Amino acid sequence: MLAHIARRIGHFHGHQISSAILRRMRASLKTINPISLQDFSQPNPSWSPEMRKFYDHYNAQCDTDTETYENKTGPWRKLPSYNRSIKHATGGIYISKLIQAKARLFTRSVNEQGATFEYVAFFNKEEKICICLFQPGHLLEGAPGHVHGGAIATMIDTVTGTLAGYLSGPSVTANLNINYRSPVPLGSVVIIHCALDRIEGRKTFITCKVTSTDESKVYTEATVLFVSIKLGSLFG
Amino acid sequence: MLAHIARRIGHFHGHQISSAILRRMRASLKTINPISLQDFSQPNPSWSPEMRKFYDHYNAQCDTDTETYENKTGPWRKLPSYNRSIKHATGGIYISKLIQAKARLFTRSVNEQGATFEYVAFFNKEEKICICLFQPGHLLEGAPGHVHGGAIATMIDTVTGTLAGYLSGPSVTANLNINYRSPVPLGSVVIIHCALDRIEGRKTFITCKVTSTDESKVYTEATVLFVSIKLGSLFG
Repeated sequence: MLAHIARRIGHFHGHQISSAILRRMRASLKTINPISLQDFSQPNPSWSPEMRKFYDHYNAQCDTDTETYENKTGPWRKLPSYNRSIKHATGGIYISKLIQAKARLFTRSVNEQGATFEYVAFFNKEEKICICLFQPGHLLEGAPGHVHGGAIATMIDTVTGTLAGYLSGPSVTANLNINYRSPVPLGSVVIIHCALDRIEGRKTFITCKVTSTDESKVYTEATVLFVSIKLGSLFG
Repeated sequence: MLAHIARRIGHFHGHQISSAILRRMRASLKTINPISLQDFSQPNPSWSPEMRKFYDHYNAQCDTDTETYENKTGPWRKLPSYNRSIKHATGGIYISKLIQAKARLFTRSVNEQGATFEYVAFFNKEEKICICLFQPGHLLEGAPGHVHGGAIATMIDTVTGTLAGYLSGPSVTANLNINYRSPVPLGSVVIIHCALDRIEGRKTFITCKVTSTDESKVYTEATVLFVSIKLGSLFG
């Protein structure tokens, strides 16, 4: 039942995109739709000094080619983040227009910098982990001054899904189980730590922990189950 | 650990607001901040005919006073929905300005009608259930053409939290456990059914099911645990 359509984004990030395809995508997008290939996980002026500090820390370990997003050395890789998932899955063929041209990825759909989801993820293929720096903005409020539980769930689903995608290929979320330990203040910076628990056939189990940047405080813990699907099944 | 700050919105909806307080809130808001007391759960032009049809169906059972939002007869009540939770908790005293004036409730933070979360909830106090009509917009995309799992989690957290609030008073989400059965198409209309499972001391267990409007298709199932807190603890 789960295998026929994918609902998720990051799962397709693992598929490498060549420079030629990127150029073709940029060219086609110019004439079709104002969606850009902007990488929304790059630093911007809304990032707090703390966000920027931890970004620099992890980014320094990546040594990634900024054009192709392929890492040159070492296990760490900074993951780009666009405002539509379809481009990754189709390698330049703009199928999303056939579905709904106005649609945008939930976590990247608000243009105002700093207002909603500011985040950047790093993937370590050797350790099979993913680290995400997340700075929740003022439009993600739940109770006064704190992040909505649904916004935290959204980030957990996104980052664990990205890891599952890299490890097991295109997948869909089957179960999301979150324990909320402590509320996250709006505008703070947290780290989302994701690690592979185990793979059983088509099932990939990921564990996740949301902590303060010094890791002394645990805000949230989660386990997420993904089921891998065939990429072609995305399009019926 | 959970008892010191609330992260959630709907939990405070259960507290009735008198006409006098509403007038005072409107007056103070005019001079302090452009946040309005607009009820975002009223029909708007972005609603599909299906959304409107089911709204009319449930709304007809409410017979709610449109000024005070208190129901006059029967067990059903339409729940209003604003873009900040704090107003409900404080009865007109605008504490939210002290916390972060720009902050807006996650599910009501995008102004464009139809772009994100279009929803309206109805509460039945006798049966201890809550029904929510949800029309996900094009900015909530996960995989192409479908709603992001995090957006579904957000609505489940919001509506189950509203029910918990009415039944047990102010509460925070402690556990959110979601099984995704089938992806939800963008722009469709789904019904989120929430029911009380049981209350054990400070713990309130709510079950939740997301279905098609004819209830033939189950998209998502969830159980959510809330822990009640003292309202005063919200503000330190």
